[in-house]
Amino acid sequence: MPLDLNSDLGEGFGPWRMGDDAAVLDIVTSANIACGFHAGDPRIMRRTCDLAVARGVRIGAHVGYRDLVGFGRRDIAVAPVDLRDETLYQIGALAAFARAAGDRVRYVKPHGALYHAAAADPALADALLAAVAESDDEPALLGPAGTELEHAAARAGVRFVGEGFADRAYTPAGTLAPRGTPGAVLGPDDAVAQAVSLALSGTARTVDGPGAVAVSAGSICVHGDSPAAVEMARRIRGALAEAGVPVEPFA
Amino acid sequence: MPLDLNSDLGEGFGPWRMGDDAAVLDIVTSANIACGFHAGDPRIMRRTCDLAVARGVRIGAHVGYRDLVGFGRRDIAVAPVDLRDETLYQIGALAAFARAAGDRVRYVKPHGALYHAAAADPALADALLAAVAESDDEPALLGPAGTELEHAAARAGVRFVGEGFADRAYTPAGTLAPRGTPGAVLGPDDAVAQAVSLALSGTARTVDGPGAVAVSAGSICVHGDSPAAVEMARRIRGALAEAGVPVEPFA
Amino acid sequence: MPLDLNSDLGEGFGPWRMGDDAAVLDIVTSANIACGFHAGDPRIMRRTCDLAVARGVRIGAHVGYRDLVGFGRRDIAVAPVDLRDETLYQIGALAAFARAAGDRVRYVKPHGALYHAAAADPALADALLAAVAESDDEPALLGPAGTELEHAAARAGVRFVGEGFADRAYTPAGTLAPRGTPGAVLGPDDAVAQAVSLALSGTARTVDGPGAVAVSAGSICVHGDSPAAVEMARRIRGALAEAGVPVEPFA
Amino acid sequence: MPLDLNSDLGEGFGPWRMGDDAAVLDIVTSANIACGFHAGDPRIMRRTCDLAVARGVRIGAHVGYRDLVGFGRRDIAVAPVDLRDETLYQIGALAAFARAAGDRVRYVKPHGALYHAAAADPALADALLAAVAESDDEPALLGPAGTELEHAAARAGVRFVGEGFADRAYTPAGTLAPRGTPGAVLGPDDAVAQAVSLALSGTARTVDGPGAVAVSAGSICVHGDSPAAVEMARRIRGALAEAGVPVEPFA
Repeated sequence: MPLDLNSDLGEGFGPWRMGDDAAVLDIVTSANIACGFHAGDPRIMRRTCDLAVARGVRIGAHVGYRDLVGFGRRDIAVAPVDLRDETLYQIGALAAFARAAGDRVRYVKPHGALYHAAAADPALADALLAAVAESDDEPALLGPAGTELEHAAARAGVRFVGEGFADRAYTPAGTLAPRGTPGAVLGPDDAVAQAVSLALSGTARTVDGPGAVAVSAGSICVHGDSPAAVEMARRIRGALAEAGVPVEPFA
Repeated sequence: MPLDLNSDLGEGFGPWRMGDDAAVLDIVTSANIACGFHAGDPRIMRRTCDLAVARGVRIGAHVGYRDLVGFGRRDIAVAPVDLRDETLYQIGALAAFARAAGDRVRYVKPHGALYHAAAADPALADALLAAVAESDDEPALLGPAGTELEHAAARAGVRFVGEGFADRAYTPAGTLAPRGTPGAVLGPDDAVAQAVSLALSGTARTVDGPGAVAVSAGSICVHGDSPAAVEMARRIRGALAEAGVPVEPFA
Repeated sequence: MPLDLNSDLGEGFGPWRMGDDAAVLDIVTSANIACGFHAGDPRIMRRTCDLAVARGVRIGAHVGYRDLVGFGRRDIAVAPVDLRDETLYQIGALAAFARAAGDRVRYVKPHGALYHAAAADPALADALLAAVAESDDEPALLGPAGTELEHAAARAGVRFVGEGFADRAYTPAGTLAPRGTPGAVLGPDDAVAQAVSLALSGTARTVDGPGAVAVSAGSICVHGDSPAAVEMARRIRGALAEAGVPVEPFA
Repeated sequence: MPLDLNSDLGEGFGPWRMGDDAAVLDIVTSANIACGFHAGDPRIMRRTCDLAVARGVRIGAHVGYRDLVGFGRRDIAVAPVDLRDETLYQIGALAAFARAAGDRVRYVKPHGALYHAAAADPALADALLAAVAESDDEPALLGPAGTELEHAAARAGVRFVGEGFADRAYTPAGTLAPRGTPGAVLGPDDAVAQAVSLALSGTARTVDGPGAVAVSAGSICVHGDSPAAVEMARRIRGALAEAGVPVEPFA
């Protein structure tokens, strides 16, 4: 089974940059591109779309709360009806750059606090999926499997792709162990091993013991916000190749 | 020859409203909808698109400078390369709501300070038209005839529609007389008469005398920001009907 | 005992206005002036401070979440350490206009979602009061009595003034009945009566019966966002005068 | 004669950082702190004020246009009356953090496009100085000598301090040579030499020849946006010490 690698990209704003986008685009197969609400501006969006298309990397809309100063990481009590509109706005804006670059928005991934809120709240998940479903390009939804996001995608008739994390341990229920928990964040070697295990056996480490738990992941999230993160992404890509796992876009 | 009536709509933001959109949408045939940079937010954009489509009013992207506090009325030295990206972002965002409402973005009209800057500066006009040309829906460009906007539209292969003003006098060169000039703003009766004259003979009053000047106007701009403005728009629509001018969308 | 009347003022932004500030400033004795985060801009802040000082109305900083599009009415999970900084920023900005107008910031009142969040959460209340306490002008804190805001003010050594609502019924515990509850919003006659009762006997109506509950209110909030609201504010001021209650600023 | 060294600091926003503030604060004697309009947020402003006061570095308000995405580097046609209000807002906000840190705003320096616009336009300069003059703390104005800023400061009764640039050549008229001009930007060795020459003889290199021109500079601007910039700032400080020039705050 092929596996997709995704990363958050285009997360600068105006004069500010975040991460080494060019390096990450040589590793991943899907680019979650910020759409201007929690990060990203029109110039960065066009450039990131152009770079992605030039490398055959798929374009995804990384939609978030309207909160630059908080980088979309703070919960905001957005009413579902507004979340639908704010999501559609972001998808539409990115779609224009994706099409100008010669491709289209292949998927949508919620960012930060919205990712967690929509995974837990069916009304938010339905609102987000309603925007995805009314988008022209029929994008898929990339998010944590087994959550409200997956259920809402099924209700909306939107293709769902589960996202796994190489560098994070899971609870026995198959959800991410919170960052605070001891053992929740894996070191580089364990992360590389977990990427391979997600690909080959569909399992991840549990935070509280030696066991493993089934995690349905068509795509693994890697990071580029530090040289060490880029290096880990590169090792993951290499280990997957060695294990005979084709790294390909899901979309 | 049929004539189009256009108006600036959806110019609220968050808790704030501007003008009586519902009343104006019963009068005009084209809606210039703000896209979030100088006014407008996702909720207002969806609602305005829905109302427009329900009445058969055409949707246009009213693109402006990123300047809520200045309402897009202040000159900003945006580099052409950035203007292209900022324009495409706005068109794309509105296009998503236009399509969700069952139609598409039929035209683009620059707003406020951008309207005047792009009419005068070929580099800005080309940047704006580049964004229009790469938009998916092949929108037209609505703006002042005989300016750099018309020339840039020709260069970009984009359909151009000239915009006339019923309540403003023109210079002998066929351009708008600046607001400060005595006689530059017409009273209601003169405005109604000028709308008819623009439609039947393609001429408008000159500011400095009894003469008339040729003004190529496929669409006339009316306003809805006060009850008097709405009333004037209604009278213009009525006078055109009486004069046998069909009021129809150009797009 | 004298009573203060306060109202939310300066709630426009850029081209947009909200409410009839000039009319309200002739009625109230304290002006809660928005500081640019949920509403208000520098021009409006200066103008509102100037108008207030010219009428002897006291200036208060109406601090809110950084959320123009949501008008500060949506919960945002701001960390207490950040809330302190965001509050101090807003107080400082308004203080400059208050001083330029010849007075100073006499009090701070949290707005919207922050009002309710800080009333319920001691960590948020302490953060807000820390900013108030480190402000140069030693402002008081205006908010609902008996809540975490009052306790935090005591801890911070900041003067606390309880705020009552004329047009809202209370629970038997002395807190505001939620807007959704039947009977939670009083009609004009009842509101006028409640203002007098708050002033003379320190009691308000309970939502679930004919009873009354003690509400400590040194100031009553009135509104100016509609002609009816302004008229109600005027009647309240008149009824207090008739009842022999001096209407005076608390600050 | 002692000389001051100033640098632009606190130029991050939300999740984004710019430059190595801690390193620069060990070198300079005056910190131009962004106030939230072109860069800076409340958390960064407090932290930068605290760090400055801990090192005895003076706090200046680095006021700019409201333009995060353009970093205050784009001309915006702000009306003088609005510029005055926007400037006072920024000074007031920073003043609150300066006082919380135990000091006060000692001076104001305009940033980016505003620096150049106000240096050339007496109406903008007067507006900016009006805000400085009505500030509580009687800050000085730091800017280019011999320009409208110096004249406006004289009219407003505000102390003016001329700013020189070590790494830039000047025209024979004593103004900065535009960046585009060949020879306009000096290499590290020349910059160090020019800092000493500004301090000892009050002269700088002219861009078009071997000559020198008088430049009145009570403060020299250094940068911290790259390791090379920090190193150059350190060398300048060292060379001044060697030349017997005391490096002290002007304020």
